[in-house]
Amino acid sequence: MTETVSSLAALLGGRFVGNGALPIVGVADLRMAGADRIGFVRDVKYRDAARSTRLGALIVYEELDTQAAQIVVEDVGLAFAKVALHFHPVPRAKQHSIHPTATVHPEAQLEAPVEIGPNAVLGKVKVGAGTVIMAGAFVGDGTKIGRDCVLYPRVVCYHGLSLGDRVVIHSGAVIGSDGFGYARDGAKWTKVPQLGSVRIDDDVEIGANCTIDRGAIGDTKIGARTKIDNLCHFGHNCVVGEDGAFAGATFVAGSTVFGDRVTMAGHVSIAGHRKIGDDVRIGGNSCVLFDVEEAGDYMGYPLVEKRKWIRLMTAQRDLLELQDQVDELRKAIEQAGGLGSERNDAK
Amino acid sequence: MTETVSSLAALLGGRFVGNGALPIVGVADLRMAGADRIGFVRDVKYRDAARSTRLGALIVYEELDTQAAQIVVEDVGLAFAKVALHFHPVPRAKQHSIHPTATVHPEAQLEAPVEIGPNAVLGKVKVGAGTVIMAGAFVGDGTKIGRDCVLYPRVVCYHGLSLGDRVVIHSGAVIGSDGFGYARDGAKWTKVPQLGSVRIDDDVEIGANCTIDRGAIGDTKIGARTKIDNLCHFGHNCVVGEDGAFAGATFVAGSTVFGDRVTMAGHVSIAGHRKIGDDVRIGGNSCVLFDVEEAGDYMGYPLVEKRKWIRLMTAQRDLLELQDQVDELRKAIEQAGGLGSERNDAK
Amino acid sequence: MTETVSSLAALLGGRFVGNGALPIVGVADLRMAGADRIGFVRDVKYRDAARSTRLGALIVYEELDTQAAQIVVEDVGLAFAKVALHFHPVPRAKQHSIHPTATVHPEAQLEAPVEIGPNAVLGKVKVGAGTVIMAGAFVGDGTKIGRDCVLYPRVVCYHGLSLGDRVVIHSGAVIGSDGFGYARDGAKWTKVPQLGSVRIDDDVEIGANCTIDRGAIGDTKIGARTKIDNLCHFGHNCVVGEDGAFAGATFVAGSTVFGDRVTMAGHVSIAGHRKIGDDVRIGGNSCVLFDVEEAGDYMGYPLVEKRKWIRLMTAQRDLLELQDQVDELRKAIEQAGGLGSERNDAK
Repeated sequence: MTETVSSLAALLGGRFVGNGALPIVGVADLRMAGADRIGFVRDVKYRDAARSTRLGALIVYEELDTQAAQIVVEDVGLAFAKVALHFHPVPRAKQHSIHPTATVHPEAQLEAPVEIGPNAVLGKVKVGAGTVIMAGAFVGDGTKIGRDCVLYPRVVCYHGLSLGDRVVIHSGAVIGSDGFGYARDGAKWTKVPQLGSVRIDDDVEIGANCTIDRGAIGDTKIGARTKIDNLCHFGHNCVVGEDGAFAGATFVAGSTVFGDRVTMAGHVSIAGHRKIGDDVRIGGNSCVLFDVEEAGDYMGYPLVEKRKWIRLMTAQRDLLELQDQVDELRKAIEQAGGLGSERNDAK
Repeated sequence: MTETVSSLAALLGGRFVGNGALPIVGVADLRMAGADRIGFVRDVKYRDAARSTRLGALIVYEELDTQAAQIVVEDVGLAFAKVALHFHPVPRAKQHSIHPTATVHPEAQLEAPVEIGPNAVLGKVKVGAGTVIMAGAFVGDGTKIGRDCVLYPRVVCYHGLSLGDRVVIHSGAVIGSDGFGYARDGAKWTKVPQLGSVRIDDDVEIGANCTIDRGAIGDTKIGARTKIDNLCHFGHNCVVGEDGAFAGATFVAGSTVFGDRVTMAGHVSIAGHRKIGDDVRIGGNSCVLFDVEEAGDYMGYPLVEKRKWIRLMTAQRDLLELQDQVDELRKAIEQAGGLGSERNDAK
Repeated sequence: MTETVSSLAALLGGRFVGNGALPIVGVADLRMAGADRIGFVRDVKYRDAARSTRLGALIVYEELDTQAAQIVVEDVGLAFAKVALHFHPVPRAKQHSIHPTATVHPEAQLEAPVEIGPNAVLGKVKVGAGTVIMAGAFVGDGTKIGRDCVLYPRVVCYHGLSLGDRVVIHSGAVIGSDGFGYARDGAKWTKVPQLGSVRIDDDVEIGANCTIDRGAIGDTKIGARTKIDNLCHFGHNCVVGEDGAFAGATFVAGSTVFGDRVTMAGHVSIAGHRKIGDDVRIGGNSCVLFDVEEAGDYMGYPLVEKRKWIRLMTAQRDLLELQDQVDELRKAIEQAGGLGSERNDAK
């Protein structure tokens, strides 16, 4: 695919400076070389690197002193993402192909074109056009997958699930496994069959080796356009809103309900049956034990406003000194005769 | 499968109220509809929902005002689990079938009936009757699997393991991978071969994408009826007792020994070479660095009695205020002439 | 394979005591039996067990009172690892074999001998001699794997990666999945295509169900001889030095750079864009939010020197008592007339 500086400027709604006719065949890092590549400068601190770049073009936040052609935009990161996606689109099936080693149920409904990779196993499923199901993926009976989805190698979708359009699932993720439901029977556990499903809406992306359990009776739901990083877990009956972002290794126990546009930095742990409101943002390694209804930035364990957590961490680090100070005050008071047998009385 | 209200009441040892002859074909949520379905009411707060339910029958904790037939039992949750399991039993092989794409070692001993799914790979194994090994699962040489087990798609069991009867393992779980054992050789690490195995007793269930490492020399053991949620890890030579429950993303380093009936809420982290006694229950997101021998509820990091942790969290949240109070006391004492150069002397 | 006590002593550079001609066919635990097996005694506390051992030979730290032949060495653990590795070497392909159910791209370059297991799927790859790729593993186009590597069943290597020699990857690990990169576009996320790769150097071992994401533009790198336990995650563009050790469930966000010889105990969480210096060792369940440049032992959250963390944990456990003490001091001062309305003024 070949574009030009001016065609990319049009794609981005940006203004170009320099040779608009310059052909561009791909993106690159500022420090790489390539007369037909476009890079980006997001920040004043890369100004010098921009001056000496060996790339043919740059996406910039303002016109810079460089020999490269430039496209000036408001949001450099977003513009670069769009150009990169233009050159490297998400995989999509263009011609109908089912690998001879794939095992497909005779009543599966595959809307052409789909691509089914080697050793993939499809039960009695429905799959929309454009979808790519890669090597060794498994899709159980009754699961419905929309259009233009990608299941990377070794993804497992249990039976009876529902995936929207343009859903991307990375390798090793397991969708629809049984929720962790047992009832006590004396000292023993009796399994509570997990009869619900998982519903994943359009444009969701799920990272490698994630697990999303099916609901106990109702469904576990992941809202449209939410992005989930590797090794995250969602327990049964969680409901996630739209446009969320969950960074890696985030653990969510069952039945927790999230609003829209939540972001969880990595390694967050969230108790079950909680409510997390719209636009709640939680910092890395936090633990959420209670509802968080109000939008804002939170962090830590115990979870507090993020700004407070930064101060609390310092206070925790200074806890030995605080103990020393209290000891010192006690001694001063005792010396002044102000504390004595009363202390023992108080205990 | 069709039952009646009275046959289910007999199954549960409960008393029925209303039309005992009503046919019931499955379970449902209280808010769903279905004259031939049975739901449950566990709590007084769903009393109104019970009155207007469109289900044919309900399992209830006491007789309620509703048109539905009722089965009155002591433990509603357990009773519902039993009825649901009755209608939705765990998969079991009924007729012997080995998918033509499966690869089975010629000396594997498969006790009919077993079901082996597409692309499953079995080494020189022993598998008991009733066991289902689903698509793409792998079982290494010398591994012995009991009767009525289920290995969901893409489960990996390394060589030489031993699984009891009715063991269920969810997709992506890896059993018997090498423990993390290395010896320092100057700046480098030399691998310590992991020569032990994993022994999983009857009725254990293991969640999706878990990892259970083989022992270094002896075995890693998971005791009968213990239930393990998704993304948990057990290091080499861990020994888990019977009837335990480990919620998601719990991490256990090597050689830790657990008693019976332990429960770990999600995202618990447990150091190696520890002893955790019978009936120890540890709250979510806790970190266990030391032995916990006495039964009871614990939580937090540092780990304390659960009730204390709730108060400690409040105290941690108030730490800035405590610092302020100490500052204030100091000033008061200084004003009173009770503290001065001594403070500097003390440092 | 049969050795003798004296041949093993020569292998270890140790001194033997007793019957050097005794044939030895394998290793065993001190408490097991076997006249042709060798065990080890690392510590004075196993002296009595050594006296009554039923093994033919022992690796010992000093000459002991036992009927077994002995090999005296300086580092017993390392010596035992070497002997065990000698009897149980890492798998290596000896004769060229490609299972008939494997799917190999016609232009893949496989340097004989390699062993490719059932249902493995190899794109247009290069694989060095001696490498074993087990059942159901997937290797994408353009990925280059060195010599004498082992990919256990169901490993996934995405396209365009580079693995050195003697790299071992355990089941379920996913290498080269997309990094978690999205740009905000109003309320929505636009995917930033992940165009970099993963480079894994010689002698790295990676545990079961780990995930290592490809770089956004540059590469994610794992340095030579670094060992990674199960369920660890490395985000895009992380750079790990040589001879590191990362215990289980350690989570590293993107772009963090590690020096050489770092060790992370289990369940450590590390923020993105951090620098961790050579010889930094971090205790279990710690959270690293800031750079840690100086070598040493650290632990906790907030992260402090390990020795300090032990004391801080005690102080945290005593926080309620500290609050009580402060209350008591306040009362004493108030009784002495030293604090009063001022307090309210200060607020």
